[in-house]
Amino acid sequence: LQLNYFQILREIHDELQNQFGHGKVADYIPALRRVDPRKFGIALCTLDGEVIHIGDALEPFSIQSISKVFTLSMAFAKHGDSIWRRVGKEPSGNAFNSLVQLEHERGIPRNPFINAGALAITDILVSDQENPKQFFLDFMRKVSLNPSIQYDAEVAASEQEHGYRNAALVNFMKSHGNIQNAVDLVLDNYFHHCALSMSCVDLARAMLYFANHGILPVNGERLLTVSRAKRLNSIMMTCGFYDQAGEFAFRVGLPGKSGVGGGIVAIIPGKLGICVWSPELNPKGNSVLGMKTLELFTTRTGISIF
Amino acid sequence: LQLNYFQILREIHDELQNQFGHGKVADYIPALRRVDPRKFGIALCTLDGEVIHIGDALEPFSIQSISKVFTLSMAFAKHGDSIWRRVGKEPSGNAFNSLVQLEHERGIPRNPFINAGALAITDILVSDQENPKQFFLDFMRKVSLNPSIQYDAEVAASEQEHGYRNAALVNFMKSHGNIQNAVDLVLDNYFHHCALSMSCVDLARAMLYFANHGILPVNGERLLTVSRAKRLNSIMMTCGFYDQAGEFAFRVGLPGKSGVGGGIVAIIPGKLGICVWSPELNPKGNSVLGMKTLELFTTRTGISIF
Amino acid sequence: LQLNYFQILREIHDELQNQFGHGKVADYIPALRRVDPRKFGIALCTLDGEVIHIGDALEPFSIQSISKVFTLSMAFAKHGDSIWRRVGKEPSGNAFNSLVQLEHERGIPRNPFINAGALAITDILVSDQENPKQFFLDFMRKVSLNPSIQYDAEVAASEQEHGYRNAALVNFMKSHGNIQNAVDLVLDNYFHHCALSMSCVDLARAMLYFANHGILPVNGERLLTVSRAKRLNSIMMTCGFYDQAGEFAFRVGLPGKSGVGGGIVAIIPGKLGICVWSPELNPKGNSVLGMKTLELFTTRTGISIF
Amino acid sequence: LQLNYFQILREIHDELQNQFGHGKVADYIPALRRVDPRKFGIALCTLDGEVIHIGDALEPFSIQSISKVFTLSMAFAKHGDSIWRRVGKEPSGNAFNSLVQLEHERGIPRNPFINAGALAITDILVSDQENPKQFFLDFMRKVSLNPSIQYDAEVAASEQEHGYRNAALVNFMKSHGNIQNAVDLVLDNYFHHCALSMSCVDLARAMLYFANHGILPVNGERLLTVSRAKRLNSIMMTCGFYDQAGEFAFRVGLPGKSGVGGGIVAIIPGKLGICVWSPELNPKGNSVLGMKTLELFTTRTGISIF
Repeated sequence: LQLNYFQILREIHDELQNQFGHGKVADYIPALRRVDPRKFGIALCTLDGEVIHIGDALEPFSIQSISKVFTLSMAFAKHGDSIWRRVGKEPSGNAFNSLVQLEHERGIPRNPFINAGALAITDILVSDQENPKQFFLDFMRKVSLNPSIQYDAEVAASEQEHGYRNAALVNFMKSHGNIQNAVDLVLDNYFHHCALSMSCVDLARAMLYFANHGILPVNGERLLTVSRAKRLNSIMMTCGFYDQAGEFAFRVGLPGKSGVGGGIVAIIPGKLGICVWSPELNPKGNSVLGMKTLELFTTRTGISIF
Repeated sequence: LQLNYFQILREIHDELQNQFGHGKVADYIPALRRVDPRKFGIALCTLDGEVIHIGDALEPFSIQSISKVFTLSMAFAKHGDSIWRRVGKEPSGNAFNSLVQLEHERGIPRNPFINAGALAITDILVSDQENPKQFFLDFMRKVSLNPSIQYDAEVAASEQEHGYRNAALVNFMKSHGNIQNAVDLVLDNYFHHCALSMSCVDLARAMLYFANHGILPVNGERLLTVSRAKRLNSIMMTCGFYDQAGEFAFRVGLPGKSGVGGGIVAIIPGKLGICVWSPELNPKGNSVLGMKTLELFTTRTGISIF
Repeated sequence: LQLNYFQILREIHDELQNQFGHGKVADYIPALRRVDPRKFGIALCTLDGEVIHIGDALEPFSIQSISKVFTLSMAFAKHGDSIWRRVGKEPSGNAFNSLVQLEHERGIPRNPFINAGALAITDILVSDQENPKQFFLDFMRKVSLNPSIQYDAEVAASEQEHGYRNAALVNFMKSHGNIQNAVDLVLDNYFHHCALSMSCVDLARAMLYFANHGILPVNGERLLTVSRAKRLNSIMMTCGFYDQAGEFAFRVGLPGKSGVGGGIVAIIPGKLGICVWSPELNPKGNSVLGMKTLELFTTRTGISIF
Repeated sequence: LQLNYFQILREIHDELQNQFGHGKVADYIPALRRVDPRKFGIALCTLDGEVIHIGDALEPFSIQSISKVFTLSMAFAKHGDSIWRRVGKEPSGNAFNSLVQLEHERGIPRNPFINAGALAITDILVSDQENPKQFFLDFMRKVSLNPSIQYDAEVAASEQEHGYRNAALVNFMKSHGNIQNAVDLVLDNYFHHCALSMSCVDLARAMLYFANHGILPVNGERLLTVSRAKRLNSIMMTCGFYDQAGEFAFRVGLPGKSGVGGGIVAIIPGKLGICVWSPELNPKGNSVLGMKTLELFTTRTGISIF
């Protein structure tokens, strides 16, 4: 079976190679703009420990909003349902940066995967730890089994320098009492989360505990209860792709999350984690080839949760 | 196993009996207002042909927006992806009657399960058939295996009489060129879809082809391709519960659809269809006990697609 | 002085003759689309009875939304401040057809000069009269001193045929309880108000009672109290130009009202009424040369209420 | 005549004395919350140099948003119509703190009297001057003929401490490229503008150049061209009272501006400036007795620009 996955992904990778040029690399910060638009990697890790990687799957890239899955998981594991007083769990009908919904809902972001929501979750993590940046890094090294992953200081600095919109969000939520720490501290942590560099293999492996009912496969450590793992998968399903959550569910039908660095992660519950990286984004901010790869993968394997 | 389902549902039905009074029966039309708020039925049908029913599960009630799943299925089966030029498939961040999104998107409803979207789908069906009301009724009789189900003429008339908001939606979409038939004809069909009376058993059985990859279990007739059945399940997952789609996915984690008559249907792919009826609604328009029943059912059986 | 007005307007008319082509004739109904875009008329009537007319000022055109000033005046004269329970008096930040505000404010239009507001005012007039269309026509004949003005049946029919957006507005307000009469009756009256044909001279003269503290100059008949005349002028000042009310106040600084037939009326309190007609509209729906003419007129005469 | 004004204002002041308690003192910062709600002052200054003052008209209070008229005047005088690339001039249909419009219009505030607009204007002034805070203070001392007016450092500090919403606005506009200076520098200046303390007499006198076609009456210095003075009066008329601009125009009918410190200024072109101070605000943020005073004043004097 694993061999089968490899062949299918190999074919998809080959087919899509000549479909570059239909999207645009994220250009809101210089550090992201410099990425080679033709990078294209795929990695798949099974719960049994098998690893498949194709193309640029070992090269670290900026995980950006994929970090939101892990920060949410950390906050949910520690605080349980009390976090839903700070952030909703409904899909957002608007683009990912929207302030409109936030104003309408008096500073409560609609879900933890829009920027405002992830900033509120970051605020929770910052309150929890003495050294929250190191704590997040340690967690990501643990779940990816890669002790060498690092923050990209240049990306973090670049985010900071151009982060006025996120600063607006934090200030706005703070005006509604939904941020407890200093604005700059929350932003610094958030920008570092986004600036973490990981490869497709790192990310596919890091997603495994979501596919494994909350347990880290490598050592059996429970990171989330069964119920909470299932619920986080639901949120990925309904909210993971900004204004294309419905489109991704329709075409791919798996819980997943994308980032403007061009990465997309997804899981098949009980089976595997997968990550695709291709930096060209569609107008909604999702990797063009990443979405296409996962659509073809579920179509050709016949795998579906439905 | 089936016995197990019965015991679990029996216990849930018993437990929730004393939790009436936390919602409000739909009161926008007199015909719905008269329903006994303490009606409470549960039915479950498996692909193997087993049927479980508890409480008021044999009593017909107004299916209301549950009809939207079936009309969408009929239009998608006939026209394929061309229907997405008329209606989107993204969750709606707003309440189910919202005009805002519709205006912003120039007459293209955000998904087929908000009223505007179902009205656009109805327009497609009206264009397709000489006698579209009879055609829908025949289809519903076939999938529910119940040739005696009927439109409730009083409910349909009452909807018509108080249907100014839906008339506003159709007129607005027609001003954008997204309605082809006469306003009154579209409304008459739509109000009849909503005014269909079915029991929990009827509905649980009617949902089975969604759980069975598009095939009607009773005779093997294919109503939808595998891919389309899967995709309709995705849409139920992301859009089926108005402004609580995320909440339902979080708590229940199954594809489903609710109606303001107090019914909720859901499926477990490859296994079963289920329907709960309890007319008391929460402020978002979803049955209070219906949601609770399904949450307890998935928690206690451990069944999950994630 | 009157001669001075004539010379100034004559010069403006000459200068602007070669500025056609910077706007678009209203094209949402065939009957308006056929108008010659190069029609250009100016009329000015003083309280002393002098009349100036230049260019196509004697040719009747479709008054469209200019009718909203007169219907509001009729309803306000009869019902006083009770009408403000049905319609607001704040400028609308959105385009003139917007449903968003209406939904947010639960069916209360923001002001009487957006379509929804004028439809609510029409509903009031329809409740008041046995033959409201004749009543409005008689009123307009009286204030314009022209017993031969007529509804344009073709325009009214064309509005009706393409009036889905206005039908949406009336239905929506009726769903909120803010329309008392039958939807079609309200629409028929509204479309006739808009389809009245009047010339620049007719309209400049008809506006005089707003400039004359509510008194019809020709016979001294009081149509509005001093206070109400002043207040209607205020509403024209803040709400008369759709999404360009601020722009018109900034550039012209007079109470006025525009219509998509290309007409603009304005008054100088205590002095005169003026009307310009040029069918080419800017993207906000206001006559390009109409606004330019009035800007140059106030600039060159030095007349201002500020 | 001046005596007449005095008697009328005296009577109004007496009558309204017993109408305290229908509004709420601004409480978003401690420094404002401490104001005695029963302060009530009225001042009127004519172009001829006469000054009338009643009640607490000599006591300095926080001018808050009244400052926006003067900063706009300074920026318009120096830069002319180029400022309209940075800020619109249409009335805002939303409350004064709204982010919605700002997002919709890509960082261009709808008018210079909503907070976002005044912050953009402040950014212009900050770019113009080496010591912009001193420059504004000097200007206000000149137009009020009172060299002793001061910033209230406690109010400025309190605004700063609670100014997260304004910080959100500046950051958001900066993300759209509509702020040139550092966020903190713009905010510091803006908070000082709002924290200026002036009395009713100071403010009534400071407004005189708007009533005098742009010329400072005391020495004949031209601060604005005739055309620009007229145009600023138009903007006050259409935008000066947040979400009650239409209501103020309807009831009072004069160009004016209110502040949450409880002050309202207005002018009668060619005649006078007037200022009322009463800290109790209605839910829209405008002084209850201030609006009532001016309504009675225009009604009883019969003065109107219409």
